[in-house]
Amino acid sequence: MSAEPLTPAEAAAAEKSAEEVEKGYRQPTVDVDVMRGLLDGRYAEVRQLVRDNLVQHAGLLEEAERLGSEEFRERVKEVVVELAATGQTGMGLPTEYGGGGDVGASIAAFETLALGDLSVLVKVGVQFGLFGGAILQLGTQEHHDRWMADIVSGRLLGSFAMTETGHGSNVQALGTVAVFDPETDEFVITTPDDDARKDYIGNAARHAELAVVFAQLEVGGERHGVHAFVVPVRVDGEPAPGVRIEDCGPKMGLNGVDNGRFWFDGVRVPRSHLLNKFADVSAEGVYSSPIESPGRRFFTMLGTLVQGRVSVGGAAINAAKVALAIAVKYGDKRRQFEAADPESEQLLLDYGMHQRRLLPLLAENYALHFAQEVVADQLHGVFSGLTDDDEVRRLLESRAAGTKAFGTWHATRTIQECREACGGAGYLSTNRFHALKADTDVFTTFEGDNHVLLQLVAKGLLTDYAGEFEEMDQFGMVRFVTGLAVETVLEKSAVHKLLERIKDVLPGGDEWDQEAGLLDPNYQVAMLRFREEHMIGGVARRLKAGVDAGGNPGDVFSRVQDHVIATARAHVERLVLEAFVEKTAALPDGDEKVALNLLCDLYALSRIEADRAWFMEHGRLSIARSKAITREVNNLCRKIRPIAVDLVDAYGIPREMLRSEELLSSEAVGVDG
Amino acid sequence: MSAEPLTPAEAAAAEKSAEEVEKGYRQPTVDVDVMRGLLDGRYAEVRQLVRDNLVQHAGLLEEAERLGSEEFRERVKEVVVELAATGQTGMGLPTEYGGGGDVGASIAAFETLALGDLSVLVKVGVQFGLFGGAILQLGTQEHHDRWMADIVSGRLLGSFAMTETGHGSNVQALGTVAVFDPETDEFVITTPDDDARKDYIGNAARHAELAVVFAQLEVGGERHGVHAFVVPVRVDGEPAPGVRIEDCGPKMGLNGVDNGRFWFDGVRVPRSHLLNKFADVSAEGVYSSPIESPGRRFFTMLGTLVQGRVSVGGAAINAAKVALAIAVKYGDKRRQFEAADPESEQLLLDYGMHQRRLLPLLAENYALHFAQEVVADQLHGVFSGLTDDDEVRRLLESRAAGTKAFGTWHATRTIQECREACGGAGYLSTNRFHALKADTDVFTTFEGDNHVLLQLVAKGLLTDYAGEFEEMDQFGMVRFVTGLAVETVLEKSAVHKLLERIKDVLPGGDEWDQEAGLLDPNYQVAMLRFREEHMIGGVARRLKAGVDAGGNPGDVFSRVQDHVIATARAHVERLVLEAFVEKTAALPDGDEKVALNLLCDLYALSRIEADRAWFMEHGRLSIARSKAITREVNNLCRKIRPIAVDLVDAYGIPREMLRSEELLSSEAVGVDG
Repeated sequence: MSAEPLTPAEAAAAEKSAEEVEKGYRQPTVDVDVMRGLLDGRYAEVRQLVRDNLVQHAGLLEEAERLGSEEFRERVKEVVVELAATGQTGMGLPTEYGGGGDVGASIAAFETLALGDLSVLVKVGVQFGLFGGAILQLGTQEHHDRWMADIVSGRLLGSFAMTETGHGSNVQALGTVAVFDPETDEFVITTPDDDARKDYIGNAARHAELAVVFAQLEVGGERHGVHAFVVPVRVDGEPAPGVRIEDCGPKMGLNGVDNGRFWFDGVRVPRSHLLNKFADVSAEGVYSSPIESPGRRFFTMLGTLVQGRVSVGGAAINAAKVALAIAVKYGDKRRQFEAADPESEQLLLDYGMHQRRLLPLLAENYALHFAQEVVADQLHGVFSGLTDDDEVRRLLESRAAGTKAFGTWHATRTIQECREACGGAGYLSTNRFHALKADTDVFTTFEGDNHVLLQLVAKGLLTDYAGEFEEMDQFGMVRFVTGLAVETVLEKSAVHKLLERIKDVLPGGDEWDQEAGLLDPNYQVAMLRFREEHMIGGVARRLKAGVDAGGNPGDVFSRVQDHVIATARAHVERLVLEAFVEKTAALPDGDEKVALNLLCDLYALSRIEADRAWFMEHGRLSIARSKAITREVNNLCRKIRPIAVDLVDAYGIPREMLRSEELLSSEAVGVDG
Repeated sequence: MSAEPLTPAEAAAAEKSAEEVEKGYRQPTVDVDVMRGLLDGRYAEVRQLVRDNLVQHAGLLEEAERLGSEEFRERVKEVVVELAATGQTGMGLPTEYGGGGDVGASIAAFETLALGDLSVLVKVGVQFGLFGGAILQLGTQEHHDRWMADIVSGRLLGSFAMTETGHGSNVQALGTVAVFDPETDEFVITTPDDDARKDYIGNAARHAELAVVFAQLEVGGERHGVHAFVVPVRVDGEPAPGVRIEDCGPKMGLNGVDNGRFWFDGVRVPRSHLLNKFADVSAEGVYSSPIESPGRRFFTMLGTLVQGRVSVGGAAINAAKVALAIAVKYGDKRRQFEAADPESEQLLLDYGMHQRRLLPLLAENYALHFAQEVVADQLHGVFSGLTDDDEVRRLLESRAAGTKAFGTWHATRTIQECREACGGAGYLSTNRFHALKADTDVFTTFEGDNHVLLQLVAKGLLTDYAGEFEEMDQFGMVRFVTGLAVETVLEKSAVHKLLERIKDVLPGGDEWDQEAGLLDPNYQVAMLRFREEHMIGGVARRLKAGVDAGGNPGDVFSRVQDHVIATARAHVERLVLEAFVEKTAALPDGDEKVALNLLCDLYALSRIEADRAWFMEHGRLSIARSKAITREVNNLCRKIRPIAVDLVDAYGIPREMLRSEELLSSEAVGVDG
């Protein structure tokens, strides 16, 4: 047996550093305003504008329950247009047309909007992010002049018609066609079959007048891949000629958004309706593009839409804050069962299990908040032209994909746990979890299915070892195993080189991690980095071995797929931890820094704990240390418990957004009769 | 480092048995009807009656989306009364009053009802299970004669008014009082404060005429603990005098059930309205009970309600089947991204990751189905008087609590994973996940919060070591650490005895488990049994050590609470696996047995895999074996994939209950254009 019981000396050694830290430990108190300032960051003013707007429209949370779907859709539209007038929704669009011209501000505004009704959030995202963003990023001056001012003001509502029924994540394979007709200087847009109908399209069922439609461009009998066209879909409230529109009908949530389907039956649009920033067709029917490779052109076009993923990830992290605020405050008021004092029942949050359920999620939320800050900054840099080059864009796309997947899964899990932690009361709509659960549910699959996104992240990691994969299937990663690609990966980074890299991640030598303090952030990051590097090498080797052995490439990929996803997870987890560690390290000394260090340690150690089997299996964690980490996680929970309410107050969620009148009033506290 | 890399020989040894099994392996084909017969068991006819009823009322699934809350409540009430006429809802009530007199049949009927609209299910549960069950189990002949026939027919609807706002799980502490007034021979029922209002009560907001109200009985100034009283709450559709009723308002789901709140302001009921099976008050104001101890009396009364937990657990397992059926069938039709064949996209269910997401949940569902069969049989035995004694009842209550917790968490997790596995389409209400998620959400907290129930299970385990804890706090387990109780536990089962027991669970000696075949069910069960025994001993030792060291009992308990919960989980997991192993072992040879063995292996190994860190930490899993288990789980997924659709077809879910027209039609299949 390789796993012998630990000696008392080993156990003592493993806990030594934790104990040493303990000696000098003083429980911090948190200044809520200071902590809120740290969270709000450079866009504190924008966030406050949005908070104030949310309070003004707080009634919407209750209307979402009360109104019928049609009525609620109209209310949400009204609110979106009203918000547009305050400037908050157009922060990312150009100043020439009434926008704010600040991408970072637009992300901050969108994130904050997620504290309120999420139909409003999503409708804002459809109109100003997806529809407006596509016109901005894929179109040129003529398109901007023609439509942008009306988009910014909300006078012209539009759809982003990419997804098709038969092609959810595989955009390159979509079926809608746009054939150039040189006779009339028009494109003819057609839906060939029901698989190619545009589906789940926001604003489609009621409000869109225009749609940006993604279709296979065909010129003179030749296909040039997916391009975007502006298509009028509704005239005076009725479907435009040749356009069939269907309502997607009731959804789990977000019923203030009018999702629908489009079919196009030979719909003609002028040649000028091709969004022609990356490719154009002349009147003579000559196709041209500044980007030679079709694959690269496609991904350049898609890449401009990365803002959507950054936005959804940030929104999810903020929606989770609402759930955490309610559950933590409730846990600090609600009493159940007598315990320490026979005269009164014990507060829920004083139970160890309750701390275990909520506080690691609170720590993860803080970690993701700061990781989101990093990706939003990078997005701002790239889209403001401050730091734009191919490599930076590629890293941004990968990070955006990973943060979106983590943020949205975090929201799903956190909201569920918080709702359960509020018992039966958590089931009543007035207590917010109903809307939070139902509305955020689709976040894990829209703007890119999370598993597909993690494959995109993994592709990026393997690309680091090679270099010429820009044109590969962006989502499926399947072609990695179809021949040459894998060979190239492995030639350029032979296995021994991989192992060198793995050793390099341990700063103090191969055995260093067996001695390092559990609360040393270098140790924590090194652990996550080791796992990541080890997994990348493992995936590459397995792909190669499978193909070398003559396996069917599809089968080989299928067998390795869980490692691919695990590798991407390991990578994103490391990025999140690094963002949190760096944020905290840069702060001046003080109680807020101490508090954030507790959260950062809890995040790091609870992630290592969750995957401690892997670390043991790969020789990076002894049994003694593994058990010590579990003890330390409990210990950190106990230290965070006294400041937990302050930490959720620092989110700055307006009281009106929490609702939950009875849940959070002191009268609802159970006291032993 | 205690975790050295494995030698090739070790690795080979670890996989040997798996390979040996492999050699003789022949892929089974599943006869759907035969498998369905195995699942339906002895109550196949009852299940078919309910299926037919569901198909008749299939329109309700769509009405749940379309109708307003008031209208839908009335529809659900109508359907419940119509179902009552078929006999399916009264199967558990006495034949003298038109019932079926068969508890097991009533569970089977209820479980099957969970394939349809869950508001109907819950309203049936409230009326025939909780309200009818309380009158039956806590009342006597007089009460039965007076009300039971009208209850069975659905002419008289009622509420089960136990839960109070301030006292969710802690029933013993509830605040409503019932004072005996010998002058008028009446009880006077009063809600002293808002904390003591009855809350979340089904049938309260609209339909109940009577309620069984749990209140602290006071006779001649003396309190006798919680007792149940029949209180008229509504007369001619209006609240009865002294009764205030409030609607709980919109909920996350189950909006066809009219949950509400009651306040009682000195409501007078005749003395005969005390449900007096376990205690009575004479006209002279003398309290008497055949059960001397107040604690024991309380738990005897509560214990009669165990049927509710068995019902909810079974319902949850069956609701999860609907989600699994949709997701597995969709995964077998939907194509995304080209892989093996460049001409066509690959079926989702051929991706390794997709198998990993769905098939262990499918295996768990089968495992829980057969574990539920065991607990339902035990319930039937006890309540039919076939096998009723204190010990059997105690085991039943523990098993019911554990199965309810596992079944409901399984439903929450499975429905979520299945919904994500259906992408954006999973978000549309027509595809069922909306209702499944929203309606089942509360299952984890009603009929006993799952964490509280697992503490109840843990209490039972510790009780096995001692013996006189019948009267202890049933839910909190807190008093275990308040003094003598813990001493008693540990005196009767000294540590060395615990360790003896642990060794005994390994049939082939201490090292046997390092050599045993991974697919040997004895190995799998021994692993889970070892973990359970080890954890029980650990919890007892920690409780004692904490109290011996002079710790505040509340703090001691709080620190050990996560171990308490983990112990209960380990116990229930072992029971579930044993139920599945025994079921499968008893079958005649054949392909269905082979198929069930695959599922049973997948359940066992994926549970061990999920907790492999613990097994490594406790010396029961070498690194080589741990990795071999992960490989074997993948291997089992690949073997189950070809029969996955048959396995969900065997659930026998009527096509109408799946809805999801587009999701499951072959036209919705994406093919590469």
